Amino acid sequence: MSAGGEQAALERIDRARRRPRAFRDTHITTAHGAGGKATHELIERLLVPVLGGGEQLAALADAAVLGVGGTSVAMTTDSFVVRPLRFPGGSIGELAVNGTVNDLAMVGAAPLALTLSLVLEEGLETEALRQEIAAAAAAAKSAGIEIVAGDTKVVGRDAADGMYICTTGIGILDPRAALSPAGARPGDRLLVSGPIAEHGVAVMLARGEFELGAAVCSDTRSLWPAVAALLDACPGGLRSLRDPTRGGVASALNELAQASGTAIVVQEELVPLAPAVGGACELLGIDPMYVACEGRLLAIVAAEEAGVALAALRSVEGGDEAAEIGAVEPDPAGIVLVQTAFGSRRVLDMLVGDPLPRIC
Amino acid sequence: MSAGGEQAALERIDRARRRPRAFRDTHITTAHGAGGKATHELIERLLVPVLGGGEQLAALADAAVLGVGGTSVAMTTDSFVVRPLRFPGGSIGELAVNGTVNDLAMVGAAPLALTLSLVLEEGLETEALRQEIAAAAAAAKSAGIEIVAGDTKVVGRDAADGMYICTTGIGILDPRAALSPAGARPGDRLLVSGPIAEHGVAVMLARGEFELGAAVCSDTRSLWPAVAALLDACPGGLRSLRDPTRGGVASALNELAQASGTAIVVQEELVPLAPAVGGACELLGIDPMYVACEGRLLAIVAAEEAGVALAALRSVEGGDEAAEIGAVEPDPAGIVLVQTAFGSRRVLDMLVGDPLPRIC
Repeated sequence: MSAGGEQAALERIDRARRRPRAFRDTHITTAHGAGGKATHELIERLLVPVLGGGEQLAALADAAVLGVGGTSVAMTTDSFVVRPLRFPGGSIGELAVNGTVNDLAMVGAAPLALTLSLVLEEGLETEALRQEIAAAAAAAKSAGIEIVAGDTKVVGRDAADGMYICTTGIGILDPRAALSPAGARPGDRLLVSGPIAEHGVAVMLARGEFELGAAVCSDTRSLWPAVAALLDACPGGLRSLRDPTRGGVASALNELAQASGTAIVVQEELVPLAPAVGGACELLGIDPMYVACEGRLLAIVAAEEAGVALAALRSVEGGDEAAEIGAVEPDPAGIVLVQTAFGSRRVLDMLVGDPLPRIC
Repeated sequence: MSAGGEQAALERIDRARRRPRAFRDTHITTAHGAGGKATHELIERLLVPVLGGGEQLAALADAAVLGVGGTSVAMTTDSFVVRPLRFPGGSIGELAVNGTVNDLAMVGAAPLALTLSLVLEEGLETEALRQEIAAAAAAAKSAGIEIVAGDTKVVGRDAADGMYICTTGIGILDPRAALSPAGARPGDRLLVSGPIAEHGVAVMLARGEFELGAAVCSDTRSLWPAVAALLDACPGGLRSLRDPTRGGVASALNELAQASGTAIVVQEELVPLAPAVGGACELLGIDPMYVACEGRLLAIVAAEEAGVALAALRSVEGGDEAAEIGAVEPDPAGIVLVQTAFGSRRVLDMLVGDPLPRIC
């Protein structure tokens, strides 16, 4: 992108952000569930204001933090509506546990207890339900979180895509964690805990809608071990964590850049990407930066701690491809830029609309 | 029912309860979501064993109780899938808050924080969503619980009946509460906080499938004020609380009778029932004892505290029709009996199958 092109893009984004903040869409569309701009508008312009905009909600972190007695408790909720229910590397039951465990981990909370609420479609095979409950139980055991309560509802045929699972988790905030979506400061470094876009591509391919034979597995896993390793290694230098799920790395970084009023510059050639995933994205015409991960984290860390932090991420199972992929700059505030191997830069905006098949 | 008929019914129930405890249904049906026997079998024979049957889950209380630091915290979850979304006296947003607040209240926990997870159907009108979010916010304010986190997913057309809401709540256990589903002892009294079956009948009539013009409003409300009044009035004499939602009063009392190994005998003519509700049930051919309430509680209290407890229930807004409706006897263990005004008794078994239109 030329310097003039970048300037035009920045001005366009700036204009969009200054638009009146009413929610004007008359109907809900799949874009509102895609994790990008439309989702943010729904949350920021309709849900938070109508709910009264409490302090916790307005912070829009992955999890709320509450005082309970003398203890800081994190709490988060997530509904899982993935199709197909099972895909290479995982399934909805496993995803529903790991997804909520990870939202707790992103605020620095050790997983404590989880609830599991099922909406089942009439006609669902019992065996499919049994498999997902077993998958959830195994994921909970592996993540060290106890499933303490549940609920089951049954809805009519064709009214739930087989099953939906809502999980809600609570965790104990690690006292060493001082994380905030607004924590990034110029000079900080950006790390990622492993290759990106694997979950989203695995689910898209599992649908069989594309004639691609690539073997791609979801990356779903608990991220608490990685967070615990970071807190052990460099608690003071750890600014912000995000797991780039819906909307992918691009949307997660935009949230961090906007919250902190900094620019985040990603070095494209440093971003770990499996060849099969990169190839599938190219054939499907989608940018892997917008594709969901379900077991990766992005960490903003102080420059002087970047080496220790990277070593910590790599010390954890599944973290051997962790990498430093960028840095925080003062300007342009609130913007994410991708720098190519050839030195050119382009703006990496938040996901607009819903260009991808719904995958979570 | 003759004495011989009662004996035959008891033997049938006993045989059914001694059946092998494997879950044999190959597919999920609406009966598994109706709150009666099929729901219990799904939970006890499939979900709890496959989840590993942790202590909390196996207790099958309305909410789990966890130690967090030095504080006892209750946690519960519930998915709401009601159609239509709005009905006389309430709507899904209000119901989703009150339902979870009430599950906390039933273990003696004061509401603290709530999460709200939405599954929205593509094409839903924004105005309908706004109304339900406003209803949830108002109900939360009224119940004194803060909505701290949320999530939104969008699914395809016809894949969510407009919207589903999953709420999860945490609350602080009142140190005076010593409640247990197994708490009933022979001689104890049974109280109900108001007229029964109103929510279920209101929703059934709101569907317009029946040619009945009766004006019936849902009873949805927070039950924490009633529980707080009971804890103030007679903490030591309060054995068990249940809010009779899915499966109605009959299913809730069966759970208490089975857990405590006692008989619960209900005096039919003492059960408060609005004439319009009783009339609608008669025309629809359903027993109001099986119809859901969403703002009533059943309390088992020590005989010597029954008067104080009833006065406490009546002192609370909406509680002026609270009544003592029965007593606990030693035999037949695990059975609920209804005694008619004429002195005959019949077994009131748990709901079998799904004879009612799905209403929650």
